[in-house]
Amino acid sequence: MHDLSAQISFMLEIDKLKAVYRKTVVEADNNRQENSAEHSWHIALLAQIMVDYAHEPVDILRVTKMLLIHDIVEIDAGDLFAFADEQDHQAQELKELEAAKRIFGLLPKHTGQSMLDMWLEFEQAHTADARFAKGMDRVLPVLQNMSNQGGSWKVNQVKKSQVLKRNTHLQDIAPKLWEYVLNQVEIAVGEKWLLDA
Amino acid sequence: MHDLSAQISFMLEIDKLKAVYRKTVVEADNNRQENSAEHSWHIALLAQIMVDYAHEPVDILRVTKMLLIHDIVEIDAGDLFAFADEQDHQAQELKELEAAKRIFGLLPKHTGQSMLDMWLEFEQAHTADARFAKGMDRVLPVLQNMSNQGGSWKVNQVKKSQVLKRNTHLQDIAPKLWEYVLNQVEIAVGEKWLLDA
Repeated sequence: MHDLSAQISFMLEIDKLKAVYRKTVVEADNNRQENSAEHSWHIALLAQIMVDYAHEPVDILRVTKMLLIHDIVEIDAGDLFAFADEQDHQAQELKELEAAKRIFGLLPKHTGQSMLDMWLEFEQAHTADARFAKGMDRVLPVLQNMSNQGGSWKVNQVKKSQVLKRNTHLQDIAPKLWEYVLNQVEIAVGEKWLLDA
Repeated sequence: MHDLSAQISFMLEIDKLKAVYRKTVVEADNNRQENSAEHSWHIALLAQIMVDYAHEPVDILRVTKMLLIHDIVEIDAGDLFAFADEQDHQAQELKELEAAKRIFGLLPKHTGQSMLDMWLEFEQAHTADARFAKGMDRVLPVLQNMSNQGGSWKVNQVKKSQVLKRNTHLQDIAPKLWEYVLNQVEIAVGEKWLLDA
């Protein structure tokens, strides 16, 4: 029963991810901000749907697990806007590592360590699974903003070059999706949803 | 590119699940109602964490996929309270089947059919994977309500017998979790979070 109570503590702790809000908005819900829990659901499904575009073979169960847990650290560290300064990104990394240790540490030792390892694998993106997972995380806002008249790009005056840089790894991970992104950013510039810079 | 545009249409359509609200509330977010997208994320993770309690062997990738897609039909059919009348449940089933056909039908044919089959498998609960997935879906609100002074049970005057009936399959699926539920409902009755009936 000791393990079960640790597992339940973890499950209840991560409920808090439903209260971490991102810049992306949910068009269908009066353009309220999206939270990181529902975002995690959405990209886990995106990975299922897009797995055939993966250039290297990936283990979709591992990819899915990574995507389900990758944002849990935001419970302590908060969500940082994708296009924040480099300095902010570095500070965020430290906060997230502490958060990962605390939150995955609520679990029984073996599971907690395996989740922490998986979270680190996602962050470091040295494996095909992690790279594909990260690619999904970055491409989904492109779909969302394009379907929502520029969404968070327009509000935050994001540049085309920033979106391309953030998705550049798609070139190797999933070339067909990279081609799609290239095409979409041009449309977005034409519509003035992205700055042409 | 034909497939890609169908896949993207599906991904954008399911964004609407973030606007379908359930009776369960999110304590960490001022007790606002939980939506079905973030709920799906939460139970997909619950399944990962609790898989060792499964009495029969399960394929956790299939269980996870089922949980990620099981509520998508609510985009058209809405969420029905777990403890609604039997008649309402029957009407809901028909609406959900129509919704499944429409929404999974947005995908390329092969993927759409395989998602529809998986959704039907979950609904019918004739396989070990589906039974375990359904068990997770039903036990999570127990954890949430217990950690939140009775939560949606108290507000909706739910009876102990209703919660036991809804979780009764845990006896076969995951006996240890059933034992836990039995114990929790007694505490809930003592606290007047559940009616003793």
